[in-house]
Amino acid sequence: MINEQYKQMLQGKSVIRQLSEFATARGKEIGYENVFDYSLGNPSVPVPEKFTQVMIDLLQNKTSMELHGYSPSVGIPSVKEKIAASLNKRFDMNYTGNHIFPTTGAAGAVAHAVRCVTKPGDEVLTFAPYFPEYNPYINMSGAQLKVVPANTENFQINFEKLEEMLNEKTMALLINTPNNPSGAVYSAETLTALAELLYKKQEEYGHDIFIISDEPYREIVFAGVDAPYVSKFYDNTLSCYSYSKSLSLPGERIGYVAVNPKCTDAELIVTICSQISRGIGHNCPPSIIQLAVAEVLDVTSDMSVYETNMNLLYNELTDLGFSCVKPGGTFYIFPKALEEDAVAFCQKALKYDLVLVPSDSFGVPGYFRMAYCIDTEKVERSLTALRKFVKENY
Amino acid sequence: MINEQYKQMLQGKSVIRQLSEFATARGKEIGYENVFDYSLGNPSVPVPEKFTQVMIDLLQNKTSMELHGYSPSVGIPSVKEKIAASLNKRFDMNYTGNHIFPTTGAAGAVAHAVRCVTKPGDEVLTFAPYFPEYNPYINMSGAQLKVVPANTENFQINFEKLEEMLNEKTMALLINTPNNPSGAVYSAETLTALAELLYKKQEEYGHDIFIISDEPYREIVFAGVDAPYVSKFYDNTLSCYSYSKSLSLPGERIGYVAVNPKCTDAELIVTICSQISRGIGHNCPPSIIQLAVAEVLDVTSDMSVYETNMNLLYNELTDLGFSCVKPGGTFYIFPKALEEDAVAFCQKALKYDLVLVPSDSFGVPGYFRMAYCIDTEKVERSLTALRKFVKENY
Repeated sequence: MINEQYKQMLQGKSVIRQLSEFATARGKEIGYENVFDYSLGNPSVPVPEKFTQVMIDLLQNKTSMELHGYSPSVGIPSVKEKIAASLNKRFDMNYTGNHIFPTTGAAGAVAHAVRCVTKPGDEVLTFAPYFPEYNPYINMSGAQLKVVPANTENFQINFEKLEEMLNEKTMALLINTPNNPSGAVYSAETLTALAELLYKKQEEYGHDIFIISDEPYREIVFAGVDAPYVSKFYDNTLSCYSYSKSLSLPGERIGYVAVNPKCTDAELIVTICSQISRGIGHNCPPSIIQLAVAEVLDVTSDMSVYETNMNLLYNELTDLGFSCVKPGGTFYIFPKALEEDAVAFCQKALKYDLVLVPSDSFGVPGYFRMAYCIDTEKVERSLTALRKFVKENY
Repeated sequence: MINEQYKQMLQGKSVIRQLSEFATARGKEIGYENVFDYSLGNPSVPVPEKFTQVMIDLLQNKTSMELHGYSPSVGIPSVKEKIAASLNKRFDMNYTGNHIFPTTGAAGAVAHAVRCVTKPGDEVLTFAPYFPEYNPYINMSGAQLKVVPANTENFQINFEKLEEMLNEKTMALLINTPNNPSGAVYSAETLTALAELLYKKQEEYGHDIFIISDEPYREIVFAGVDAPYVSKFYDNTLSCYSYSKSLSLPGERIGYVAVNPKCTDAELIVTICSQISRGIGHNCPPSIIQLAVAEVLDVTSDMSVYETNMNLLYNELTDLGFSCVKPGGTFYIFPKALEEDAVAFCQKALKYDLVLVPSDSFGVPGYFRMAYCIDTEKVERSLTALRKFVKENY
C-alpha cells in the first residue's frame, strides 16, 4: 500500500511553486511579459559559452566508455582533484580529491551531509529566515530541524536564541550564507563568534557538532561585501555547493560536498556519503556533467544583472517606506510587509500582477521575498506597479 | 558524530568491486588485455551515434533556460509523454506521461518504487539468484528484503518456496527478468502463475501486493526467446527501467518507473516518487539527459556481440562438463562451480587470470557469474585459459 508518510507530504505543496504556477497561468491571460513574477529562483542569465563548448568537445572526442561509463560511487577522481585544487587556490584550503563528493546540487549535498553526521532523533539547528526545503532534507533523514529565530536587525545570527536552543542532541547547524531569502552574507565577526561558541559546546557535550554550510550563492556577492569562506573558521565544516546559480544550470543537478580536511573522520565522510547515495539508487551525478563542470571551475555566468536589479529594487523599496536590509549577495531581497499578515499583503499585490512570496514558510512572519533573477527591463517596469500597489493600499 | 549505520556499510564492500579492482591491478602487471575480466557489468559496446548527435544538437540549438533550467520534480512533461507513447506502442499499454517517473537508472527506480509501496517493517520478497545491490535499496528504506530460494533447474520461480514465504507483511515482490546473474527470462507461464498467486493473496490479506519489476536488460534478449512484458500480467506492477545497457550509458544514470495505469493509486505514485526524491535532495535526472534520451527511445546500441559471446561461452562450458542453464538474455551466464565452495573455485581461477564472481552474494551457493560484456576476441582467448584451468584442477 502507498506509504502514508509520503502521501501526506503531497498536501504540503510549496507556496513558492503555487505562486509560480499562478504566474504562469496569469501569463497565458495577459502575456507573461506583463506578469512581474518574483516567485522562483530560476537563474535567467545564460550558461557560459565555455560550458557548452566543453560539452560538445567531450561528445566529439571521448570514447563511449570514457564519457558514459560508470563513475565510481565517490565521484570521478580527476574531477574531484580539480575541484579540490580550485578551492585550495581560492580559499587557501588543503583539500584533496578524497575530500570532495560530487552531488546533485547543493540540495543533494545538504541531504547527504546531514545523514552522514546525524542519526534519527538528533537535532539540527538552522536560522530563520531559511530555505523551506530544509524541512524535507532534514526531517526525512529522521533527524529534527529546529529553527533559531531571526536577528531581524541585519539577518546575521541571533546568538542569544542560539545559545538557548543548543543542547546535547544538537549534532549539526545548517547555515546558508549568502542567504536565501534575506540576501545577508555572514561577516567574519559572525563566523568567528559562531565557531567559538561551537568549540565550547563540543567540549561541554563531549561530541562533535558539525556546520553544514549551504553555499549555492557563494559566487553572487555584491560590490564592497566580503564573503568569508565558512570552513576557514571551523574545522568540523561540510561545505555544500551547487553550480546551479554560478553556471546557470539548475536542471543539470550538479554540486558537491567539500569535507574540511581537519574535521573528525575527514577521510571517511566521502565514502559514507557514497553509501547513502547507494541506498537510494542514485550513485553519482552523470559522468558527462561531472567531466564538463571540471573544465569550467573558474568560470561563472555574467551575474552583474543581479546587482543591477538589487539596486533598483532596494532604492525603490526604501523610497516607498519599506523597512529592508540591503542584500550583500544572492538574487533575493526580503523586505518587511506593510501589514502584519504577509499572506494578505502578497494576495493584494497579485492584483497588480506582482508575484511576491510571503515569508511565513521561511520561518519569519510579516516579510516577503522577491527573487530578482529576471530581466532588468522587467524589474524597471515592475517599479511602477509596486508604487501603484503601495499608494492605493497603504 | 558519523552515523554508525553507514560506517558499518563500509565493511561490506562489494565482492564484485573487489574482483574488478583485482583485475585492474593485475592488468597493470601483465597488460589488461591479458586479464580475462568477467567481473563487472559495464557495457562495452559504444553508445548509438544518434544519441551523441542529439546531445550536440540540443547544445547548439536550445537556449540555456530550455536546456538547463529546472526540470519539474516529476520529470519533464514532453519526455514523459514520449516514453509513455513508446511503451504503449511496443507493449500495447495505456500509459500517459503521468505514469512515468524519470530516475537515475533502474537503481533509482527500484529504490523509489520500494519506498513508495512499503513502510518500515514491511517485507519485500525477491528470488535467488538476485542482484546484491537489492540489499541496500530495500534495507535502507526500512523494509526488509527476504530471499526466496532459487529454482536451480531453470531459474524460473520456485513457487513452492514462494508460497511458504508469502505472508501478511509482504507488500512487494522484486523481480528481475531478464535476470542478473542467471540470464533467465521469465516465461509467460511463470508470469501468469505468479499473477494468479498474487491476486489470490491480495484478497486473502486484504491489501495490495506490488510487483516491482527491475528490467534493465529488457532489450537484451537472444534469438528464439520470448520476453513478455511483466506489467501486462499483473495490474499492481511498477516497471523499473534503465538506459544503461540498451544505450551503453551507465554513467549518465537515466531510467524510469512506469506505473501500470490500472494499479492502486496509479495517479498518485509518480508524485509520491517525486516527494521521496525531494527528501534526498536529488529531484530529477539532469534535464539535458532527459531531453536527449527522449529522442532516441527506439534506438539501441548494437548488442549482437552479447549473443555471440554467450554462445561461445555456453558451448565451451557445457563441453567442459559444467552444468549450466542457457541464458535467454542479459550479458551474464551462471554455471555451477566444479566444487561446492564457489569462493575457492573462483580463487583458483584467478591463477589463470580468469576473473569469475562466486555466487554467494547472489543468494545461491556453489555457482559463479561471468559478465561477458567484453570484446569477443577476448572471450575467444579466455576459452583456452578456461580449459587449462579445468583440466589442471578438476
